[in-house]
Amino acid sequence: MAIKFTLHKTCAQSGARLGTLETAHGSFETPIFMPVGTQATVKTLTPAQVEAIGAKIILSNTYHLYLRPGHRLVEKSGGLHKFMQWPGSILTDSGGYQVFSLNDLRKISEEGVSFRSHIDGSKHFISPEKAIEIQQALGADIIMCFDECAPYPADRSYVLPSLERTLRWAKRCQDAHSNVEKQALFGIIQGGMYHDLRARSAEKMIELDFPGYSVGGLSVGEPKPLMYEILESTVPLMPAYKPRYLMGVGSPDALVEGVLRGIDMFDCVLPTRVARNGLALTSFGKVVVRNNPYAEDFAPLEEGCDCYTCQKFSRAYLRHLIKAEEVLGLVLISIHNLRFLMRLMEKMRQAIREDRSLSFAKEVLAKLL
Amino acid sequence: MAIKFTLHKTCAQSGARLGTLETAHGSFETPIFMPVGTQATVKTLTPAQVEAIGAKIILSNTYHLYLRPGHRLVEKSGGLHKFMQWPGSILTDSGGYQVFSLNDLRKISEEGVSFRSHIDGSKHFISPEKAIEIQQALGADIIMCFDECAPYPADRSYVLPSLERTLRWAKRCQDAHSNVEKQALFGIIQGGMYHDLRARSAEKMIELDFPGYSVGGLSVGEPKPLMYEILESTVPLMPAYKPRYLMGVGSPDALVEGVLRGIDMFDCVLPTRVARNGLALTSFGKVVVRNNPYAEDFAPLEEGCDCYTCQKFSRAYLRHLIKAEEVLGLVLISIHNLRFLMRLMEKMRQAIREDRSLSFAKEVLAKLL
Repeated sequence: MAIKFTLHKTCAQSGARLGTLETAHGSFETPIFMPVGTQATVKTLTPAQVEAIGAKIILSNTYHLYLRPGHRLVEKSGGLHKFMQWPGSILTDSGGYQVFSLNDLRKISEEGVSFRSHIDGSKHFISPEKAIEIQQALGADIIMCFDECAPYPADRSYVLPSLERTLRWAKRCQDAHSNVEKQALFGIIQGGMYHDLRARSAEKMIELDFPGYSVGGLSVGEPKPLMYEILESTVPLMPAYKPRYLMGVGSPDALVEGVLRGIDMFDCVLPTRVARNGLALTSFGKVVVRNNPYAEDFAPLEEGCDCYTCQKFSRAYLRHLIKAEEVLGLVLISIHNLRFLMRLMEKMRQAIREDRSLSFAKEVLAKLL
Repeated sequence: MAIKFTLHKTCAQSGARLGTLETAHGSFETPIFMPVGTQATVKTLTPAQVEAIGAKIILSNTYHLYLRPGHRLVEKSGGLHKFMQWPGSILTDSGGYQVFSLNDLRKISEEGVSFRSHIDGSKHFISPEKAIEIQQALGADIIMCFDECAPYPADRSYVLPSLERTLRWAKRCQDAHSNVEKQALFGIIQGGMYHDLRARSAEKMIELDFPGYSVGGLSVGEPKPLMYEILESTVPLMPAYKPRYLMGVGSPDALVEGVLRGIDMFDCVLPTRVARNGLALTSFGKVVVRNNPYAEDFAPLEEGCDCYTCQKFSRAYLRHLIKAEEVLGLVLISIHNLRFLMRLMEKMRQAIREDRSLSFAKEVLAKLL
């Protein structure tokens, strides 16, 4: 098998789980946060810096790599790990989310989705089979089924046929997937904000017996309490002995809430995207680095943080870099933000180990808000 | 004394010299190239990356730091070394070059230069005394006299009074400089493209007995052969036992030619600036990374280069990053370009040691062009 997941325990205080996930590119404890490297680079950082942050697995985007530089080129170079020189594990999404986000530029049929490139307007077609072909060429350790992520809000009358098609596509992905010994294909549970549709999607997806499952279609604009409700009804339906991945979620509070509800894996562009706006994540909330109060603040972004940025630089220096539009500002805040999420997950794992995930989560959330 | 310069030898084949320069922040062999960190950051790179490249001394710009974040803020933070977390040596220019480059935005008088900020249009005045005050607050190991860099071309009738004023300003800088035990103040030889005016500037500057001298006002648009001619007449007039610094020069060929003519120190934004345009410096000339032939070129930028970029990444990957406008592309090419110049200077020093600087230079130049 391409991956091995071992569930060590579930916390006595919540649904939070401690596990180990092994791939051909390493072994790591879950729950875990995966930094996003959309275009075969975690934005602004070298792989050495991403490793130093403690990342073990990153996510890369099939849609983007298919368009540029092209999956065949990545394959020729020896696969995505070698191309981008990332020694750890990689998960690729299926491209579904990006393709569906193109709105006016795409057209859905039973066969797949035709769309125009956001780069040059060129015409393309991705089917479930094509999504698997691309992901096999890229060679990530974990790959995803081609699915439709329904928008929010969406009527039942939209969501039901969409999730049924996503189920048929999942079967086609499974049939097309030949590289099962090297790549684990995960199924994606959809169903919008409808508990019964989520249950239906979960039941049918589980029948296909994938080595792991994600919850898709959340964090698409709905209120957070609604997302947590959906998790509460959906996660318990997922197999306990397989990894559970909540796609596209990465704000510190949502990570904590997701872990409490039994999620093992997360990814999100948030820590690197907000860094590019000069926004730092800390355990006492967001810090807008360019704000005046930091002009002569010679303390680190966050006392006690062990990241390169906090070990070396002051808020005053970071503010200077951001105001002067220096790239190093984005680099240093990205390093801190990613390390902050890595440490948050480390602390969550320790809390689960010690059966105090809920008390720890309350403490964290109170300080964040 | 703030610095100690030891001249080990002059090459039997040319005017090239091997020396050691010691400051409170380290000791290094000359000739040396200084990467530029205009706004207290070598663009796109962390100090750790700049150290890994082998840089021992960097240059930072007084004009920029005076305007933003302000020299008093840098002083409060503990000085420029601490502010930007650069453990090696630093040289600051005087701001003269930048202020004079403002053209319509500045007005020169005997007292100094009034100008408007390129950032917000605010009014400022820098005199020789002010330039020293700012540089003392920044706390670099080597600081420079406030001078006028005459434009090219410029009539004798412009250059002569300009260099005379620069001489008077140099005396005022020396008188204003109180921190002589910690910071070495260098004099700047001007004189445009006129050999006799250069000689006059050199003679009078040397009378002031600075611990080091630079040749300013070159690489301002004149043909390179003319720059080399000026060096050939000017450098021999400079004290042998003091460091000689050619300001603003950093193309690989000009570095080699400068070393042959007895220059010990160089700085230039070129390696990082061209990196931002996706241009790599190599020993066989420039590589335009985005060009089509590199699309499936899985070799490193330069075979045999020991930089992080060449040790890890292919031209195909770098091209992908540049085409996808990923910051990491600029970072990786900046690393290579700086390391390329560091290695070039290492090889030059070795050639001087072995009395073969001219033969080595010919070899290098033939491959470059």
